[in-house]
Amino acid sequence: MLSVLDLVTRLDNGTLDLAGLYRQVAETIEAKEPEIEACAFIDWQRLKTPDNVHGPLRGLPYGVKDIFDTAEMPTTYGSPIYDGYRPKADASVVSMTARAGGVAVAKTRTTEFAFLQPTITRNPHNTAHTPGGSSSGSAAAVAAGMLPFAFGTQTAGSTIRPASFCGIAGFKPSYRILPTVGLKTFSWNLDTVGVFAASVADCAFVLSAISGREFHLGDADAAAPRVAVLRSGFSVEADAEMLGALDEAARIAEAAGATIVDFAFDPALIAADNAHPVIMNHEAALALAYEFDHHGDALSPRMREALAAGGAISVADYDAARSIAHRGRRRFDDIFEAFDVILCPSAPGAAPAGLEATGNPAFNRLFTLIGAPTVSVPGMHTSAGLPLGLQVVSRFGSDDMALRAAHWLELQMARK
Amino acid sequence: MLSVLDLVTRLDNGTLDLAGLYRQVAETIEAKEPEIEACAFIDWQRLKTPDNVHGPLRGLPYGVKDIFDTAEMPTTYGSPIYDGYRPKADASVVSMTARAGGVAVAKTRTTEFAFLQPTITRNPHNTAHTPGGSSSGSAAAVAAGMLPFAFGTQTAGSTIRPASFCGIAGFKPSYRILPTVGLKTFSWNLDTVGVFAASVADCAFVLSAISGREFHLGDADAAAPRVAVLRSGFSVEADAEMLGALDEAARIAEAAGATIVDFAFDPALIAADNAHPVIMNHEAALALAYEFDHHGDALSPRMREALAAGGAISVADYDAARSIAHRGRRRFDDIFEAFDVILCPSAPGAAPAGLEATGNPAFNRLFTLIGAPTVSVPGMHTSAGLPLGLQVVSRFGSDDMALRAAHWLELQMARK
Repeated sequence: MLSVLDLVTRLDNGTLDLAGLYRQVAETIEAKEPEIEACAFIDWQRLKTPDNVHGPLRGLPYGVKDIFDTAEMPTTYGSPIYDGYRPKADASVVSMTARAGGVAVAKTRTTEFAFLQPTITRNPHNTAHTPGGSSSGSAAAVAAGMLPFAFGTQTAGSTIRPASFCGIAGFKPSYRILPTVGLKTFSWNLDTVGVFAASVADCAFVLSAISGREFHLGDADAAAPRVAVLRSGFSVEADAEMLGALDEAARIAEAAGATIVDFAFDPALIAADNAHPVIMNHEAALALAYEFDHHGDALSPRMREALAAGGAISVADYDAARSIAHRGRRRFDDIFEAFDVILCPSAPGAAPAGLEATGNPAFNRLFTLIGAPTVSVPGMHTSAGLPLGLQVVSRFGSDDMALRAAHWLELQMARK
Repeated sequence: MLSVLDLVTRLDNGTLDLAGLYRQVAETIEAKEPEIEACAFIDWQRLKTPDNVHGPLRGLPYGVKDIFDTAEMPTTYGSPIYDGYRPKADASVVSMTARAGGVAVAKTRTTEFAFLQPTITRNPHNTAHTPGGSSSGSAAAVAAGMLPFAFGTQTAGSTIRPASFCGIAGFKPSYRILPTVGLKTFSWNLDTVGVFAASVADCAFVLSAISGREFHLGDADAAAPRVAVLRSGFSVEADAEMLGALDEAARIAEAAGATIVDFAFDPALIAADNAHPVIMNHEAALALAYEFDHHGDALSPRMREALAAGGAISVADYDAARSIAHRGRRRFDDIFEAFDVILCPSAPGAAPAGLEATGNPAFNRLFTLIGAPTVSVPGMHTSAGLPLGLQVVSRFGSDDMALRAAHWLELQMARK
C-alpha cells in the first residue's frame, strides 16, 4: 500500500518526485484494476502531468467515491440513470482537497446510490470476496496500493465496514465536520463523508490537510487511553474470529498500559440503533423520489423495494425515530465519563465470500446515527488471512480523541 | 390573490375547473409579469394543458424558487454561472409536490445563490420597493395573484422577510421537516425550505398535502394562545410603524382572549443570534468553493467578498459558534413553558425603497439557527399602504402550534 505520510516524507526529502509517484500510481492501476475493478473512471491524462504541488497534500493523487459530484470527471452515483452525467460543480470536499493540493485522478465505484446493490469491485485480499460497501471502490483501491487515499461516505456502515474487509484504515468523522454538499443524498440525517488510507495517521493527515483541523496523535509511548470494550449489543453477533481479534486487541492495549473496562449498551442506545433504519429508509424514499417516480425501471429491485418500503413509513414513525435518536445522542454523550473510547468490532467478521452482497453494517449504524467519530483500525486477520478491523469510537466532536486512541492501538498492535 | 383553500373548494364544488384556473393564471402572469418580473422561467405549455388532477393539491399550479433543481425547467440559482443549466432530477420537495398533485409551472427568481445580491423582481404593492429576498420571486408571484403558492428557502430571513414585505403568509417549518435535497446549498446547518401563500391556512394546507403531516388550525373561536410579545433584542430595532403594528396585534389578540406576556432574550439567545453569521459564512465558503475557485469573475462582488470573508473564519471560531448555537437551541426549548408562541416583527419595517438591497434579516436569523417553526402573518400596513408582517414563532417541532396560533391571529386581525 501507499502510505500518505511516507509519500509526503519522500517527496519532501527528494527521494521521490511527483512524476515518479504518478508513474507508479498509473502502473499499479494498470496492473491491478482489471482484477479489482475499483474505479468507475480514471483520469489518465492527469496521471501523466502532475502540476498541482501546492499545499499540505503536495500534489498527491487520490480517488473519490462516485457519489461525489466532479465537474471534470463523469459522475454516475452507481446507477445507470446517471450514465454519462457530468455535474456543473465539484462537491465541496473535492474543492477542499484541491485547495489542499490533492489531485483527483479517479472516481471509485459505489454501490447503487451508496445503498446495498453491489458494484463489480473485488476485495484485493481475496477476489472471491466482497470489498464491502457502499464505498467499495475507495477501500479496494487503497488496499490494492492503487491510490494513497480515497473518500467515501457512510450512511449505515459504508466506510468502517469496507475498511475492515479490505485491511486498511477508515475514518468517519463527527457528523458534518466535512460537508456533504455536492454528494447524492440518501439520508440527510445520516450521510457522512469518510476517508480511507493505509493507516490511521494517514487518514488524520488527510482530514487535517483539507479541513484545517489539528489532530494530536502522539506516538506509541503517549498516554494510553481508557478503553471500554463492547462485545455485543448490536442487532447481530460478531463471529468467533472477530471476537478473538477483539480480545487480543484488548489484551495488547492493556499490556501497553490502557485501562480496560467492559461496556454494554443500555436500552436508550439499543432503541437508537433500531431507529436507524426507520430514519434512513424514510429519508431515502424522499431523497430518491424523482428516480423512483421517473426511472423506476432503471433501479435495482432491491432499491425499488427499499424505497417503496421507506415511502410507507409514516411521518409519525419517522418523528418518533428522530426523537429516539435525539435521546440516544444525549445518552451517548454521557457515557464517556468513565472512558475515552469504545473498542468493538468494525464488522461481524471478515469479508463474506461472494460479490452478491456487501456485508452487514450492524456494528456501524448506531455510531452513524449518533454522529460519533469512528475509526476502523487494521492489523488483525482471520486464520485464512482475511483482514479484521477493530473499531475505535469516541463522543461527538472528539475526533481528536478517536484518532489518537486508534493510532495508539494501531502502533501497539504493530509492535506485536 | 389566489387562495389555495378557496381554489380547492371551487374545484371540488364545480364552480371552477382546472382549465379555467390555468387560463386565469396564464392571463394574470401575462398581465403582471412584465412589471413584477417574478419568474426566471415560465412553463407556458404546462399552463395550456392541465392533466395532473390527483391528490390533495388537485392539479394546482405553483412556483418554485430557482434554487430548487427541476429536471423539466432550467435552474440557474440566480447566477450566470448556471445559465441554461438543466439538472438531471427534481428536488425532493418538487417530487413530493408532484405526488400530492401540484404542478410546477414556474421557476421564481432568487437572489444570487439565495444570498444578498438582488434580482430584478419588484414588490407588487409598490414596484419602486424591493419584494425582499432571497425568495423574491416566490413572494412577489403569490402577492401579485400570479400563483396560489410557491416554495422558497430561508437561511437567514429569506422566507419570512419577503412574505412580510409582500403582504402574504410565509411559513418556515422546523428545520429539515422538508428535505433540502436537490437545492443549491448555501449553509447546511441553516438552509430550510419555506412556503408562501395568501393565508396561513393556505400554507398549512400545502405543507400538509406534500408532507403527510396533519395540522389542526381551528377557527376564530378556538382556544386563544398564550403569547409572548418580543419588541427588541435583535441586532437592529424595528421602526415605529412596525412596533405600532405589533402593539396593535397584541391588543387584538388580548381582546380576543389571548394571554399576553412580555418577553426578552437572555444572553444565551443573543449569543446564538450573533453566532448565526459565523456559521452561515463559514459554510457558504465551503458550499460554494467550486464557484469561488473556478468562476469567481461571474460572482457578484458582494458574493465574492462574503465567500472570501467566510473562508477566513477559522474552524475554531466555527466550532465555537456551533456550540453556542447548540446551547441556544436548548435554551430556546426551555422558554416555552410559560407561553405557546412568540409574537414579534417579521422585519424591521416595511419593504425599503429601491431594488439594490432586499432588506434586513435581523428578526429572522435566530429562529432559522434554532430551527424553530415561524410564520409571517399578513394583515397590517404602514400609513403609506405597504404591508407589515408579524411573526409567530414556536419551539422546534411545534409546527402545529405555530400555524394554529398564526391562523388564529390572522382571523382575529381580519375581524377588526
